[in-house]
Amino acid sequence: MKLTILGCHSATPHINANPTAQVLEVQGHLFLIDCGEGTQVQLRRYKVKFSRVKHIFISHLHGDHFYGLIGLISTFLLLGREADLHIYGPKGIKEIILLQLKLSKSWTNYSLFFHELDSNVPTLLFEDEKVTVTTIPLKHRVYTNGFLFQEKTKERKLDFEAAQKANIHHTYFQKLKQGYDVKNEKGELIANKTVTLEPDPSKSYAYCSDTAFYPEMVPQIQHATALYHESTFLESHQHLCEKTKHSTAKEAAVIAKRAAVGTLILGHYSGRYGDRSLFKKEAEEIFFKVELAEDGKEFEI
Amino acid sequence: MKLTILGCHSATPHINANPTAQVLEVQGHLFLIDCGEGTQVQLRRYKVKFSRVKHIFISHLHGDHFYGLIGLISTFLLLGREADLHIYGPKGIKEIILLQLKLSKSWTNYSLFFHELDSNVPTLLFEDEKVTVTTIPLKHRVYTNGFLFQEKTKERKLDFEAAQKANIHHTYFQKLKQGYDVKNEKGELIANKTVTLEPDPSKSYAYCSDTAFYPEMVPQIQHATALYHESTFLESHQHLCEKTKHSTAKEAAVIAKRAAVGTLILGHYSGRYGDRSLFKKEAEEIFFKVELAEDGKEFEI
Repeated sequence: MKLTILGCHSATPHINANPTAQVLEVQGHLFLIDCGEGTQVQLRRYKVKFSRVKHIFISHLHGDHFYGLIGLISTFLLLGREADLHIYGPKGIKEIILLQLKLSKSWTNYSLFFHELDSNVPTLLFEDEKVTVTTIPLKHRVYTNGFLFQEKTKERKLDFEAAQKANIHHTYFQKLKQGYDVKNEKGELIANKTVTLEPDPSKSYAYCSDTAFYPEMVPQIQHATALYHESTFLESHQHLCEKTKHSTAKEAAVIAKRAAVGTLILGHYSGRYGDRSLFKKEAEEIFFKVELAEDGKEFEI
Repeated sequence: MKLTILGCHSATPHINANPTAQVLEVQGHLFLIDCGEGTQVQLRRYKVKFSRVKHIFISHLHGDHFYGLIGLISTFLLLGREADLHIYGPKGIKEIILLQLKLSKSWTNYSLFFHELDSNVPTLLFEDEKVTVTTIPLKHRVYTNGFLFQEKTKERKLDFEAAQKANIHHTYFQKLKQGYDVKNEKGELIANKTVTLEPDPSKSYAYCSDTAFYPEMVPQIQHATALYHESTFLESHQHLCEKTKHSTAKEAAVIAKRAAVGTLILGHYSGRYGDRSLFKKEAEEIFFKVELAEDGKEFEI
């Protein structure tokens, strides 16, 4: 999995401070997560091929998370896109997009599929042989979901020498990778574990923004390889969280610790702080592995 | 009048190539003309005070001319704006903006006035003692207006020495500036022209984008001090104008010549051309005074 941060600042876009958008590359997919104003320019800046974006996940309908969506859809149209585009987001997103396309007489020449969300329990949005994407219900001023991207259990690795020694014909190798015991050329049953190795671990990425401190998410994101959790504020401004339904860096770290995730990535910083390292410092008092999101930064998960 | 180009490129935003937006400073007003995606960042880049923007004129509902509007309105809200904001644009613009504010539960704490347009004849949109703003009906794929910004006739200038010599009491000076003959302290009637000078010329700026070649606009923009006329294409691509309802640099120059404007400013360039100077060269074969718009460029009109 490779995560590229296109924007990680809260509220209003500034020069060199983009609102939320991320690209997650996993098992051949390129998932776009949120799409603040200017995301299409950020995609160009970091050389993400537009044609590879086929699924866009929108957490909630605050502008800093989706005002760039209509522009991206229009640009796809102008570039002559033909591939389907799937958009997952809160109920209402379809009306917003279609109204604008209608009034500009700019119907897309590709198929646009809207998957509107209004459930408050985790919901499977996407599944293929290798990956699933599920909503993570969050707690914010408007209806909001995070997203959990999970690799399915991978194939076992063939111990090629051991398999040859055991006289297994190569036509059975795929079965071995799938975990089956197989018969060798003499007709003897060979135990799978004697000729295969453990698969690479399946990875998972939990995106949780925007949200107030919400421990209810912990069971769902347990042991995620990486967790992006918003940290709009530092503890010194914790009193602002109640009204705005945002979190502090410390609160993000508490969630990371309880969920025993691999790495905590902080982002969605309020513009009031000059020194980002304070977020890391505050979170590290609670949790051992903390990274700071920055526009353009890549994370290998 | 001072015109600042925030963006002058057609269609899709790129790094360092912003879609259409301009700021016109005239007689204490700061008018925003069109508002493509990223306009709020461009306003910050060129240090335009957000609080001075009170009137926004939207030519048409293609994305490269208004996708930045909802973001700007939201940012005004987040910054605690209290001043009224007036938005002039095609019918439908109110529905687009209000739908998004409703779904994000982000009602503005300032008053938002929509002036929706659907007339095909020039319409007065704004007037005070010094300035008028009128629509210029254009010809495009969707309903589109340009905008004509006109200073009213200015006051005559007092010839202070001549007025003193003529024994005119200073309480009559304002009357003199307004063009009246007045009596002096001896009761003699003094002819206005003997104690005043011609006023500074009144300036006007015509913004015409997007539009096909449309000579019907010529009478309305006659003798404008400056004309911004779109030139999406060069003549070598004139065949694309019919379908897209855009103009070439040459066509823009023909309009400028027929209207006998002071200066022609070209913009809304298609991304297919590397060398902008070709637009200037082509237009200069028809018209004597041609300037090229560039993001961030200022024009004294």
